[in-house]
Amino acid sequence: MMQPTDTIVDFRQLVDHLAETKTQKQVAVAWPEDEHTRDAVEMAAKAGFLVPILVGSEQTKAKYEGKFETIVVDSPEAASAKAVALVREGRAQVLMKGFVNTDVLLRAVLNKETGILPKGSVLTHVSAAKIQGYPKLLFFTDPAVIPYPTQEQRIAQVRYVADFCHAFHIECPKISLIHCSEKVDERHFPYTQGYLELKKMAEEGALGKCIVDGPLDLKTSCSAEALATKKLESPIGGEADAVIFPDIEAGNVFYKTITLFAGSETAAVLQGTDVPVVLPSRGDTIESKFYSLALATMITKSK
Amino acid sequence: MMQPTDTIVDFRQLVDHLAETKTQKQVAVAWPEDEHTRDAVEMAAKAGFLVPILVGSEQTKAKYEGKFETIVVDSPEAASAKAVALVREGRAQVLMKGFVNTDVLLRAVLNKETGILPKGSVLTHVSAAKIQGYPKLLFFTDPAVIPYPTQEQRIAQVRYVADFCHAFHIECPKISLIHCSEKVDERHFPYTQGYLELKKMAEEGALGKCIVDGPLDLKTSCSAEALATKKLESPIGGEADAVIFPDIEAGNVFYKTITLFAGSETAAVLQGTDVPVVLPSRGDTIESKFYSLALATMITKSK
Repeated sequence: MMQPTDTIVDFRQLVDHLAETKTQKQVAVAWPEDEHTRDAVEMAAKAGFLVPILVGSEQTKAKYEGKFETIVVDSPEAASAKAVALVREGRAQVLMKGFVNTDVLLRAVLNKETGILPKGSVLTHVSAAKIQGYPKLLFFTDPAVIPYPTQEQRIAQVRYVADFCHAFHIECPKISLIHCSEKVDERHFPYTQGYLELKKMAEEGALGKCIVDGPLDLKTSCSAEALATKKLESPIGGEADAVIFPDIEAGNVFYKTITLFAGSETAAVLQGTDVPVVLPSRGDTIESKFYSLALATMITKSK
Repeated sequence: MMQPTDTIVDFRQLVDHLAETKTQKQVAVAWPEDEHTRDAVEMAAKAGFLVPILVGSEQTKAKYEGKFETIVVDSPEAASAKAVALVREGRAQVLMKGFVNTDVLLRAVLNKETGILPKGSVLTHVSAAKIQGYPKLLFFTDPAVIPYPTQEQRIAQVRYVADFCHAFHIECPKISLIHCSEKVDERHFPYTQGYLELKKMAEEGALGKCIVDGPLDLKTSCSAEALATKKLESPIGGEADAVIFPDIEAGNVFYKTITLFAGSETAAVLQGTDVPVVLPSRGDTIESKFYSLALATMITKSK
């Protein structure tokens, strides 16, 4: 049996760990009017790590009454506002988007008076992937929210992924800053200079327990062989626990490529908000939504 | 047996096609002083589609005299200049980099007086990939040369990949313009507006026989199922023959991800120069170098 402090290397272990540690949180689900959302929420409830509060239609109430708490509202907008309010009241530690346009839920999340994004907090998207042939989970950011991160946003991204890795019992995570080559080129790619600053911050301990290196390309980050072929050395040693992409286009291409062509399972949440937000996209599988709920629960638990 | 006009869907068919059509070109190899370069060139010569002219050291001459034409020079710089000169003299239709730093060869290629890049021509990098699970070759650009293509450069990229597809007997190639979503967003991603212009140019026939669509993400470009899940329609129909990446970071992440995690074979050449330039990187396999030589030969043949 897995020990509660062993490093979690795939999603099955994550779900088992939540069960073994009897972790249980509340999730507010905004407008769960589609099968996919309902199936994922039911799976999470059955696995025991989440107790759902469904903010939806009369139909949802009729279907789930007596099984889950339900709150009836008359629109996706009202559902989003109410689900966010449940988080503010401390009644839910995870928020999930149902059959609502992302814009609608985000408006409720980002509302300056009634929302759940603290002032000055960086909102970003963090994913975890189990890629066939890679021996552990690989965390990455940001495939979906910040187009071209500033240095300040990138610092926040590194902190978030370090937190995620720690929650998964990776004591000193190896975080790689991705670029198309290993050379700093301030003229064409100013952020590669920022990478050096981040590396220095990590070495000085300003980012908590973690190893940060870059610029490295995806292969030299994730393959010791590729690193050796290029005759390079890196404290990451081709064994990255997390990779930070330079822009949303690179992050998105990675996300789409590993799910389409490399048989990967993924989970993702928004970070920066008071609680993790599960914001599935239409193309995600039910498993991916279920794993995202587990990821959100694990992150919340560790706080 | 394959017919000479059948669409070529993998690298084996490419090599067979060159043999069946008795295609044979000359390749000038700059400083072939490493095993990898020599092995790839020997494979191409044995397959019959390339006749090498080796511009290298005394050792190279001693090893290959009587087998291949050799020209002795005293440095990688001199080898680069001489190999480029052979192209200018019409003695070679393909140029290949050996054990030379990319910068050194590129300096010879780009020299305004003695080089082989026509004035005003857009230099870019075009790759072809055979990805496990994708039923045909997928051409893509640019993982290695242009950091953030201008609209003019992107138009050239579309023209090049269309030429490549035509050379591979794809009558009306489907070319997808990649973005992290399917929405035009001029504010955050000005090039998505440029995508619409490119689409219009293609519809008006200004780009030759091809179908261009975008913005599309990688999944909706390469998976009919993903397109249907998102309830989108596209003349590409999830069957892209080629994808144009918005920036070098996205292109490079794609290239590295498919080779590291999706068991892909790749080939690549520089385009824009008078002849295709094979510019392998240290991490490439011998097969990849060999396929790149075949790709270069095929492109040259069709001109």
